[in-house]
Amino acid sequence: MIEIKFQEENKIYRFDRPISGFDILKEDNISNKSEIIAIKVNDELYDLNRLIEKNAEIKFITWDDEEGKEIFWHTSAHLLAHAIQELYPGTNFGVGPAIENGFYYDVKLPDNKIISENDFQTIENKMYELIKEKIDIKRKEITKDEAKEIFSLRNDKLKLELLDEINEEVVTVYKQGNFIDLCRGPHLPNTGYIKSIKILAVSGAYWKGDIKREQLTRIYGISFPEKKMLDEYLKLLEEAKKRDHRKIGKELEYFIITPNVGIGLPIWLPRGEIVRYNLEQFLRKIQEKYGYQTVRTPHIGNKNLYITSGHYEKYKDSSFTPFSTPHLDEEYMLKPMNCPHHCEIYKSKPRSYKELPLRLAEFGTVYRYEQSGELHGLTRVRSFTQDDAHIFCTPSQLKEEFLKVLEIILYVFKTFNFKEYTAQISLRDPKNKEKYIGNEESWAIAENAIISAVEEVNIKAKKALGEAAFYGPKFDFIVKDCLGRKWQLSTIQIDYNLPERFQLEYIDENNSPARPVMIHRAILGSFERFIALLLEHTEGKLPFWLAPEQVVVIPVSEKHYDYSDEVANFIKEYNFRVFVDKRNERVGRKIRDAELKHIPVMIILGDREKNEKMVSVRLHTQGDIGSMSLDDVKTFLLKKLEI
Amino acid sequence: MIEIKFQEENKIYRFDRPISGFDILKEDNISNKSEIIAIKVNDELYDLNRLIEKNAEIKFITWDDEEGKEIFWHTSAHLLAHAIQELYPGTNFGVGPAIENGFYYDVKLPDNKIISENDFQTIENKMYELIKEKIDIKRKEITKDEAKEIFSLRNDKLKLELLDEINEEVVTVYKQGNFIDLCRGPHLPNTGYIKSIKILAVSGAYWKGDIKREQLTRIYGISFPEKKMLDEYLKLLEEAKKRDHRKIGKELEYFIITPNVGIGLPIWLPRGEIVRYNLEQFLRKIQEKYGYQTVRTPHIGNKNLYITSGHYEKYKDSSFTPFSTPHLDEEYMLKPMNCPHHCEIYKSKPRSYKELPLRLAEFGTVYRYEQSGELHGLTRVRSFTQDDAHIFCTPSQLKEEFLKVLEIILYVFKTFNFKEYTAQISLRDPKNKEKYIGNEESWAIAENAIISAVEEVNIKAKKALGEAAFYGPKFDFIVKDCLGRKWQLSTIQIDYNLPERFQLEYIDENNSPARPVMIHRAILGSFERFIALLLEHTEGKLPFWLAPEQVVVIPVSEKHYDYSDEVANFIKEYNFRVFVDKRNERVGRKIRDAELKHIPVMIILGDREKNEKMVSVRLHTQGDIGSMSLDDVKTFLLKKLEI
Repeated sequence: MIEIKFQEENKIYRFDRPISGFDILKEDNISNKSEIIAIKVNDELYDLNRLIEKNAEIKFITWDDEEGKEIFWHTSAHLLAHAIQELYPGTNFGVGPAIENGFYYDVKLPDNKIISENDFQTIENKMYELIKEKIDIKRKEITKDEAKEIFSLRNDKLKLELLDEINEEVVTVYKQGNFIDLCRGPHLPNTGYIKSIKILAVSGAYWKGDIKREQLTRIYGISFPEKKMLDEYLKLLEEAKKRDHRKIGKELEYFIITPNVGIGLPIWLPRGEIVRYNLEQFLRKIQEKYGYQTVRTPHIGNKNLYITSGHYEKYKDSSFTPFSTPHLDEEYMLKPMNCPHHCEIYKSKPRSYKELPLRLAEFGTVYRYEQSGELHGLTRVRSFTQDDAHIFCTPSQLKEEFLKVLEIILYVFKTFNFKEYTAQISLRDPKNKEKYIGNEESWAIAENAIISAVEEVNIKAKKALGEAAFYGPKFDFIVKDCLGRKWQLSTIQIDYNLPERFQLEYIDENNSPARPVMIHRAILGSFERFIALLLEHTEGKLPFWLAPEQVVVIPVSEKHYDYSDEVANFIKEYNFRVFVDKRNERVGRKIRDAELKHIPVMIILGDREKNEKMVSVRLHTQGDIGSMSLDDVKTFLLKKLEI
Repeated sequence: MIEIKFQEENKIYRFDRPISGFDILKEDNISNKSEIIAIKVNDELYDLNRLIEKNAEIKFITWDDEEGKEIFWHTSAHLLAHAIQELYPGTNFGVGPAIENGFYYDVKLPDNKIISENDFQTIENKMYELIKEKIDIKRKEITKDEAKEIFSLRNDKLKLELLDEINEEVVTVYKQGNFIDLCRGPHLPNTGYIKSIKILAVSGAYWKGDIKREQLTRIYGISFPEKKMLDEYLKLLEEAKKRDHRKIGKELEYFIITPNVGIGLPIWLPRGEIVRYNLEQFLRKIQEKYGYQTVRTPHIGNKNLYITSGHYEKYKDSSFTPFSTPHLDEEYMLKPMNCPHHCEIYKSKPRSYKELPLRLAEFGTVYRYEQSGELHGLTRVRSFTQDDAHIFCTPSQLKEEFLKVLEIILYVFKTFNFKEYTAQISLRDPKNKEKYIGNEESWAIAENAIISAVEEVNIKAKKALGEAAFYGPKFDFIVKDCLGRKWQLSTIQIDYNLPERFQLEYIDENNSPARPVMIHRAILGSFERFIALLLEHTEGKLPFWLAPEQVVVIPVSEKHYDYSDEVANFIKEYNFRVFVDKRNERVGRKIRDAELKHIPVMIILGDREKNEKMVSVRLHTQGDIGSMSLDDVKTFLLKKLEI
């Protein structure tokens, strides 16, 4: 007797033999049968036609589940490979995973064949042919030797190398028609589930990501269970291209990345630097109001510091290698995190409960090693600056401190008009308590502090059990970019671990030593990522207070230079960023250039303005709003700051 | 016939045999004979009793010459060693050089004998004994084998090792009484020239600076040709201890340096960070006025960038080692200089003459490896942030750009009341033109630009021939610290080299490509060094506009907290840095603490002030100045900003 229990539903079926997902579907009368693409069996994903051999808790998976998309795209990668095999027999196949949006397959084409955009249509046509045939996709467990024979027969050296790395005796392959692939699965039941596909790009990729190995061809694609979803996606892509911060950042001269300085290491050009600097000023002001103290710590630290903190163990494989002094007696690392440095500051003198909460803020730069293929403009870099802070407090101060951080987050996101966000509270897995450090009481205090603080400020947040860090619960704030990709910006994390590792102490009201709790928090997350998202959200049209140039003064001719300087200097007195465009160009061109650079306010000065001591004001994308006196323009600009 | 010509004087003597400095002195009737301690013979320094064998240009050296002090202290080091040999027979002697202030000798004492402060008097007494005897100091050239015998006899393993490293067959030794040392000299004629000596300190030092070799005892001392000079020096030392930025920086909580983060890597605490931040703001404002654009570049760069710039070749031995990505395919380095990064920005798009001068400024952090013994608070560190800028211009713009930088320097130094400075223009050695890159015309333009600009702003500067960098002439601004040590702060350097190495270009008026000139410039030099000097110059009493806390509000009791907050908030509106001291302490204690922290303005609020809506104002080190209304205190503070 096999008992099948539905997760999240109060339903149980009993069978007297092993059954598949399809068998259960036949019994069950749920409405969206055709949308179901796989089944989760006791947390393991199964093909719908794979047999379940013992009692299980199950859940059906559709496209709407993250796992559903992954299966869908993974199968699409197989479909792509199948098409490639038909079109270019003799191709070797590397790996073909699902990615965040779509899938790719790394292939080695025969006879040095090169695939270009011109071939995309042919490949798509072949894929649609295979889709129309609704070819069954079958899972098979075979011995390694059998597998070796299969891939030797088609002379696929890449698959044979992958096979060699598997230590088990039995491996899984998936077969659809005459295409077979080494794969753990699961997959869609047949190719007909895929309704629309598109080949998006082709690029080079080193075998195993190792530049010393041969270069393969990586073919990217996307696919959907409905035709109209592809249309929508392509429209989104088109729109996103326009908003892509890499494009805007280049056009508006915000930043460059050059291989000579280093990939993943953004260089801030003057216009980008002003934005970053103004963001810093903005945050400093809020943080000061909330009782933060700013510090600055080196970008590097002795390796031992990170051994103490545990970061060396955690980040050593995703870091640049340590480096030494020439005499080789000291080892240093680029800073993976700012917290160990702040712990050192905490420890630099004895602390009393009267000093707590101690809030140390730093615009702290940290470093990660990311492979070149993973780098992406300002959103995925090798060096980024966090608007980091650490709050050292007593357990009883946790909730109030948490509330205050949430206040700052809400204020900042309101300022930037970021409305589409999701929030998540990551809590301990109550079934796996041994995974976490800290005692029962500490966790109760910390989790309750977060939950009640979040409720108090009315943020709708998802509670995720088991997603807490091993050292404490946390709260994350997630915003989408122009492609709908989610990026974590703000984060608040409670930490019982570092105070322990660094043996932090304060003297409490009873004159006894006690251990503080630490809160890690960032509001923007990192300046790089935040500015990228801001550029994408605003299409480069930053709010007036943040724009690199707020006002451009445009003299009609050289005769008006003096008056233009006078007006610009008057405006500068009030700390606005203003410049006079004295290029030898016509007014129309200067206005067009100002529009392209998204300069919010243009002031045009000719004879009439000069004689009447007035200015003509034009607003970005809105056009002329008429002429006004110097005093009025000052009031107008100051008012614009408040919006 | 030997012809002796006096440098800097129109005097010639002729002798029919080799003669010594003493012989010439006998002929000559100069007044300060007793002050002369050595002689320079064709740019080589000689003992006064060493024979001159051929025609020569000579110059007599006294204590007042840098070289004179060095000889004096070098001889004093021998005197110290002589005394140690008498007191502790069997001692081995390492090296014993003159240093910036005084001298030291590294010794290995017999039988693990330890020298402490208690022994200083004994050593000094022995040295004075040897001084009284006026022991002749004699130079001797002997073969290496003879030298080996001498040092083997006294079983001096350190000297024997040094001897082994000499490749010549003939070596020089100096003998005074029964003490003999391997040494190139020159030295004072006899021990009697030294009138006063003082042993200052003792520390450990690794043999050859290598931590894997044995530890020696380093004994530091100072000496003078007059008794009263020692008294003055000791007074200066005493005074300097009070002003030492390491002491003040610790007491006022400006910065810490911890071995866990790394020696030579300052961590800025909140109070120090505010000062640094305000200095940055101050400079940004001036730089903006002068048409600079601020950029930010990574702290690291691909090693190839520094190979291109030539910095790798120059700094590789004084840098932390390069580091890699985990896959070992890319090599990076901590940034030794900001200029290569700025060259990359220049190159990031085609440039026209219309864009020049392009002035790129960055508060750029650079890294050097310094041995631990060389590190000193904030003045000698392993990581420092320069207020760096690079001006890319045409040769004809050089002078005006130079003038503008000088204007900034003078303005900044006036603001800080730094009056005691020296300035130097470093020019090409006209006799050694092949040492320099760039053609005759470029050098003429550059050197004339500097010289005439410096004259125009009335700076008294020394012209130093042959001190230019190989890539161009430069101008330096030097300020003394509390010990009279000189530190270079501002620098302006013209550079023909990097534009060449990076192949920088602009399109000139005739639409042809041309090469720009680069000016490197820093005003403060580095924030670390500048703040150190500022703390020493002001004894920690920073000017009002720069003080970490400008105003402290002191409530007399808890009853006055509300009014104190009201007053503080009112003052904060005008962007002053103000806080309310709500500690549970008496008013007297709060005032004393504010005095110790050098807070410029104290506002004391009790019943009377609260009832009358007034404030009582007290100034740092000056005491009460009476009570005033809120409006008056605002005016008072705003006025204080201008001073």
